[in-house]
Amino acid sequence: MRISLFRKAHFNAAHRLSRDDWSAAQNKEVFGICSNPNFHGHNYDLTVKITGEVNPETGMLMNLKELKHIIKQHIENKFDHKNLNLDIPEMKGMIPTSENLCHLIWTILRKEISKDIEVQVRLYESVRNFVEYPAT
Amino acid sequence: MRISLFRKAHFNAAHRLSRDDWSAAQNKEVFGICSNPNFHGHNYDLTVKITGEVNPETGMLMNLKELKHIIKQHIENKFDHKNLNLDIPEMKGMIPTSENLCHLIWTILRKEISKDIEVQVRLYESVRNFVEYPAT
Amino acid sequence: MRISLFRKAHFNAAHRLSRDDWSAAQNKEVFGICSNPNFHGHNYDLTVKITGEVNPETGMLMNLKELKHIIKQHIENKFDHKNLNLDIPEMKGMIPTSENLCHLIWTILRKEISKDIEVQVRLYESVRNFVEYPAT
Amino acid sequence: MRISLFRKAHFNAAHRLSRDDWSAAQNKEVFGICSNPNFHGHNYDLTVKITGEVNPETGMLMNLKELKHIIKQHIENKFDHKNLNLDIPEMKGMIPTSENLCHLIWTILRKEISKDIEVQVRLYESVRNFVEYPAT
Amino acid sequence: MRISLFRKAHFNAAHRLSRDDWSAAQNKEVFGICSNPNFHGHNYDLTVKITGEVNPETGMLMNLKELKHIIKQHIENKFDHKNLNLDIPEMKGMIPTSENLCHLIWTILRKEISKDIEVQVRLYESVRNFVEYPAT
Amino acid sequence: MRISLFRKAHFNAAHRLSRDDWSAAQNKEVFGICSNPNFHGHNYDLTVKITGEVNPETGMLMNLKELKHIIKQHIENKFDHKNLNLDIPEMKGMIPTSENLCHLIWTILRKEISKDIEVQVRLYESVRNFVEYPAT
Repeated sequence: MRISLFRKAHFNAAHRLSRDDWSAAQNKEVFGICSNPNFHGHNYDLTVKITGEVNPETGMLMNLKELKHIIKQHIENKFDHKNLNLDIPEMKGMIPTSENLCHLIWTILRKEISKDIEVQVRLYESVRNFVEYPAT
Repeated sequence: MRISLFRKAHFNAAHRLSRDDWSAAQNKEVFGICSNPNFHGHNYDLTVKITGEVNPETGMLMNLKELKHIIKQHIENKFDHKNLNLDIPEMKGMIPTSENLCHLIWTILRKEISKDIEVQVRLYESVRNFVEYPAT
Repeated sequence: MRISLFRKAHFNAAHRLSRDDWSAAQNKEVFGICSNPNFHGHNYDLTVKITGEVNPETGMLMNLKELKHIIKQHIENKFDHKNLNLDIPEMKGMIPTSENLCHLIWTILRKEISKDIEVQVRLYESVRNFVEYPAT
Repeated sequence: MRISLFRKAHFNAAHRLSRDDWSAAQNKEVFGICSNPNFHGHNYDLTVKITGEVNPETGMLMNLKELKHIIKQHIENKFDHKNLNLDIPEMKGMIPTSENLCHLIWTILRKEISKDIEVQVRLYESVRNFVEYPAT
Repeated sequence: MRISLFRKAHFNAAHRLSRDDWSAAQNKEVFGICSNPNFHGHNYDLTVKITGEVNPETGMLMNLKELKHIIKQHIENKFDHKNLNLDIPEMKGMIPTSENLCHLIWTILRKEISKDIEVQVRLYESVRNFVEYPAT
Repeated sequence: MRISLFRKAHFNAAHRLSRDDWSAAQNKEVFGICSNPNFHGHNYDLTVKITGEVNPETGMLMNLKELKHIIKQHIENKFDHKNLNLDIPEMKGMIPTSENLCHLIWTILRKEISKDIEVQVRLYESVRNFVEYPAT
């Protein structure tokens, strides 16, 4: 009995989209108002999807308490109320687009969850814009 | 023209997660506050997804009135305002986790819907926790 | 500068609407499927509204950390994953309608929050049914 | 790094489900109240999903400004505040079910988006009824 | 114990904003795209708020089954899948703005609900635009 | 016929809660993680409520196009993708709490809307935390 389990989480962060090796005009051209040097921010919503076999003894794919703890410790505590450009070592030199951030979150969670369970991450930058990695 | 059609439904139910062959301490260890002997409950939200070919004469995959009727009669009437541990014959001896409940709902709907249409069920125990069967 | 601040919370609970001094038929007549003897349950959502003067030194009506703590300790810990008919001493002999539960939550919070701040509670039994006390 | 990016949009439109070659009774039998000759209407919500490789220089699958512009120009401007039976040339002779409308929107967007990017459209006729093309 | 009870409902309808005694240009100037002669439509969401004293015997302000029945019979059955300009006798000669429709719904419900209970109606034309009558 | 009309809007911004005349420890004590020197951010949602008499000629309290334009020009353009501490002249020296920001938005809108119409602003910092000015 192969099933998917989803858990939502969220964090609030500041960021700026720009490349240091581009001029302000070039950054404005590509990233628009997202390139504001003083940053802006978002309430990020996250849906973590894990897929695998249900344990017949407990009727659970994975104990939700454990999944919540992993997301809390490795994602929410790391990103909540932070500046994605300045406060996150793994993002130094990375443009903090939703695409790159979603991929980083997946990379972190992938290491913490048993290898016989598939992991997919959906990241909402706003109600209208969101990304999903890996693509299905 | 192969398409998917989704229909949402909901029901309110009580349940308790525990195994009779485990001690109270063991149930508390694994199921946490969900093992409260006096039950707790949820507003369950359900999304039924069906996939198949559109009938060119009607422009519909399946008449939504018919799908609503099947969900009403076989799921909402069966589970709404019930105790999942005590009132549902098919759940006797089953731990009523979201995983097991989602699988049971799929099993019931699968029998009621034409075999050339695929069925998938997403069950929300809360806004933040949900499951999907079968996994894709 | 008089303002209102709102904080959302939630808890999941089981309940049954019935009067011991009424027959099963009378309970069914008035409370319908909500009178199921084995209980059913809900994801209750709660919005606490407090109203008062903003502290000019902090720009806050009340520290949100403090309000969250009060709601967590006195409401969520008390009602979450409980049976409203059996597990809550203050509700013994009370029919656990949304109206009565909302009034009880207000009574509890009113004692914990400074008297120069007004308190109002909105309680959602489901997305479609909710109550507010005191009425405005 | 293959990812999916989603963008939401919406439009409000009137429509009627009926076939001219059927009697009013036959239309009522199949399409129910949706066959009201004077039309009814919906707030349509749309989620466009595009899938492809992230551009490592920008960290983006596609510039969201460009995707928003395409959806605005080719979908929202075309369908918003229109009558699907009378005002949309491509829908003449088509029964404006969610299935057919979703397929048409996909057909329009497919032509406007680079061929190395996959496109999928989810169309909500209401919060409870929605369709997705192509099926996955 | 004075409390407010809210119940949500919805209906889907077509409408057009225009005055017959104005030119098409004048209607376009004032009502914009809402004046499209072929109509457009909305999923209207409705929240009915009633306020009064709780009955101590039942713990209820009003039996929700009764309130649901009144809304179903007098509002949903009347407006759902209808054209507000053509199908509703009470709206002949009335511009079907949210303001006017909300007032009409209140007028209808006011007659059906006990005089010692206050009634207020909030009508959502879309997620972003809504009205409330009477004003508080 | 006195009615209230609501219009939703939103903007994304960065901010930091702290007082320059307080130590880092004091700021941390009062403002918690919101005092992060590198800022964090939010998707702010805004509901503007205006109350007054309906114009019988148009059936409208105020033309929604005009209200949308005022909110777009004076609020969204001013605050969207900005740093509340650094980019908004009116906020220099102000702690950008929800309370202070809500009051500022009301002050700006109050000047732009006819004096015979009342204005109230609800500002969501997140789905769970929001404020309303003036208090009712």
